[in-house]
Amino acid sequence: MKLGTAGRTVTLGIIGLGGRGVGQMKTLLSMPDVQVNAVCDVYEDRAQNAADIVKEQRGAAPFCTTDYREVLKREDVEAVVIMTSWQTHIPIAIEAMRAGKIVSMEVGGATSLDECWEMVRVSEQTGKGVMLLENCCYNDVEMALLNMIKQGVFGELVHCRGGYQHDLRDEIGLGDINRHYRQDNFMHRNGELYPTHELGPIATYLNLNRGNRMLTLVSMASKAVGEHEWLKKNRPDTDLAKARFNEGDIVTTMISCSNGETIMLTHDCTLPRPYSRGGYVQGVKGVWMEDGHGIYLEDDAHEGGTYAHKFKSDKEMLEKYEHPLWKEYREFGLRGGHGGMDYLVLRAFVESIQKEVAFPIDVYDTAAWMAITCLSEESIQKGSAPVNIPDFTSGRWMRREARPGDMFSLDAVYPEAFTE
Amino acid sequence: MKLGTAGRTVTLGIIGLGGRGVGQMKTLLSMPDVQVNAVCDVYEDRAQNAADIVKEQRGAAPFCTTDYREVLKREDVEAVVIMTSWQTHIPIAIEAMRAGKIVSMEVGGATSLDECWEMVRVSEQTGKGVMLLENCCYNDVEMALLNMIKQGVFGELVHCRGGYQHDLRDEIGLGDINRHYRQDNFMHRNGELYPTHELGPIATYLNLNRGNRMLTLVSMASKAVGEHEWLKKNRPDTDLAKARFNEGDIVTTMISCSNGETIMLTHDCTLPRPYSRGGYVQGVKGVWMEDGHGIYLEDDAHEGGTYAHKFKSDKEMLEKYEHPLWKEYREFGLRGGHGGMDYLVLRAFVESIQKEVAFPIDVYDTAAWMAITCLSEESIQKGSAPVNIPDFTSGRWMRREARPGDMFSLDAVYPEAFTE
Repeated sequence: MKLGTAGRTVTLGIIGLGGRGVGQMKTLLSMPDVQVNAVCDVYEDRAQNAADIVKEQRGAAPFCTTDYREVLKREDVEAVVIMTSWQTHIPIAIEAMRAGKIVSMEVGGATSLDECWEMVRVSEQTGKGVMLLENCCYNDVEMALLNMIKQGVFGELVHCRGGYQHDLRDEIGLGDINRHYRQDNFMHRNGELYPTHELGPIATYLNLNRGNRMLTLVSMASKAVGEHEWLKKNRPDTDLAKARFNEGDIVTTMISCSNGETIMLTHDCTLPRPYSRGGYVQGVKGVWMEDGHGIYLEDDAHEGGTYAHKFKSDKEMLEKYEHPLWKEYREFGLRGGHGGMDYLVLRAFVESIQKEVAFPIDVYDTAAWMAITCLSEESIQKGSAPVNIPDFTSGRWMRREARPGDMFSLDAVYPEAFTE
Repeated sequence: MKLGTAGRTVTLGIIGLGGRGVGQMKTLLSMPDVQVNAVCDVYEDRAQNAADIVKEQRGAAPFCTTDYREVLKREDVEAVVIMTSWQTHIPIAIEAMRAGKIVSMEVGGATSLDECWEMVRVSEQTGKGVMLLENCCYNDVEMALLNMIKQGVFGELVHCRGGYQHDLRDEIGLGDINRHYRQDNFMHRNGELYPTHELGPIATYLNLNRGNRMLTLVSMASKAVGEHEWLKKNRPDTDLAKARFNEGDIVTTMISCSNGETIMLTHDCTLPRPYSRGGYVQGVKGVWMEDGHGIYLEDDAHEGGTYAHKFKSDKEMLEKYEHPLWKEYREFGLRGGHGGMDYLVLRAFVESIQKEVAFPIDVYDTAAWMAITCLSEESIQKGSAPVNIPDFTSGRWMRREARPGDMFSLDAVYPEAFTE
């Protein structure tokens, strides 16, 4: 593999150009083999702003519209990147595939199982792939963990945890015109709204949809008091300070897998706290945890009885097991947002199209990961009843080829480990 | 309060004298106002060993038997301390109350709701109290946390976590004569076998059974592979290495409370790891976590956006909010096992009897906390279905007096905070 090696030109339409959309588009524009031929946002100012950026960087102005259907009609767009509000990702993806476009989309959760199934069926019928742009699967720490796991450092895995633990009270609590879909979702829904940042990497650790799959989940929500408290203190005179927020401050979800592992997810966005994805990986040989940056491996000498055992810093191990892709990436030079992972996930999307290979995060992964949101809502509504997680692969998960170790669908780093 | 001030003599019978029983008995013998008049264990060698210790320390040999019923008949025993196998705590406690004895017992879980109810009803009928000897409620860290919570450091609480995370593979995997009840339980049961070390302190934080109560729980168990792997490696030639262990390596339990808080418990005893009770307390003003020893409070200055926020060490805050009882205890001189907390819980039992006041951990707490074990088994058997947690107080929890801040039922440290 040679990061950034230019392939044939990939022509894109960008749909959804809020803060995140513009950032990702700029990263795409840094790739010489990518051409942005259409930009779209329901807000005209945003679409125009994006068009100006493309023109400035590439000389020619792209097609600019407030109607994504216009983007889907264009022959100079082979693939779309959807970065709209959470609840519009899947409907637009389905229309895009029906219009013959390849699809990628930013992360978020699904509103119903039905839309997940429709996305899967339309992808199967049209032969057009869908890739969820789950950047955290490409982060340095998560990829080092993947590397350690594939090399057997933790032995057989038993339990993984993660969370979207991000204090977003000020963003959710914007009192005037709030174009951000988060406010709607936190005000009206109650569930694991944003599962994929932690579940995506865990899915790569546990080979979900490739020899393993998620079977059932149970979710529980705490009371919702954090956002209201924040608004009372910081924006006491707004209508929002009197509004009801349905989303529980802490939503915990337990997931069972066919190979016997369990997964714990935490959604935590309306209480004061440091950002953390709360990563936690536990196997028969040891345990790693993100909070506290600790690792404990059985093979390390330990004496003095079980109370004397201590976590040690994970720094050395993360360096020792740095993923080969990241070694190459550091030489190439990090770019794009979020510590560099955004570039990698977008590059995996572009290169998979160029080489006509399956996406490392495909439509089955996208459907399964996003379905956690509506399933968690259902579980909470039913008093934390267990709900089934569908097998979107229709049984193929038992024999599907393992995901490539470099998450690029090419030049797999661990061919032997992945030939299960 | 004056720790260790001798009151009237309390006469005890000790039932169950394995390693833990002997240790606790020695701590009791260090109290001049306690007299051990009877010792009992089903194994004669253990009973005799205990009798020898009492004789050596106090001059006179106590009554010594292998039948606890003989202890219950004695007039020179007003209270019993039950430290037998988990599954015999409650049946013996019930018989003891019927024989007119006051009861304390070591921690463990219940095998059925029925035995919990019977314990409650017999206590109500006989007027004899039951105290669960949950030492972790008296640990320095947990009591500092309680102090912080009562003084409003975390604001309204939303979510708490804890775990019994203790690598016990060698103890469970003893291959020859194993008198320890853990092996039976791990081989045959599958549930949250040991909930009270973490749930006890959380119950004090959340005022459970005193203005708040646990409503429902859901449990999920991972596969059970850790003990088997350990035996294959360390004791490959034993029958035990071929035995089936039912207890999932990681059992997670979510509990909902009437005031909207949620609680997460983790049982983790058959994988390699450092000991941790995984404490975690989160409210509208901040969060504390045991792993990593981190605390984050909103009132601390934080700049640079939410990604810049960091946990800081909890050392300073734990010192600043050291519980008054612990300040006094350090002057008095720590004694007994487990960093000093064993002495405090036993002393609370003794002094409550002397002063004829209710136990700080009473029969309703004992029943509710221990019931988590059989309820978690039920939930797991039903595919992680939610199960109701009974209201053992029969509605009295809404108006019951708050638990004293010093957990001694006397000279409450925070009378105002507890008058809710």
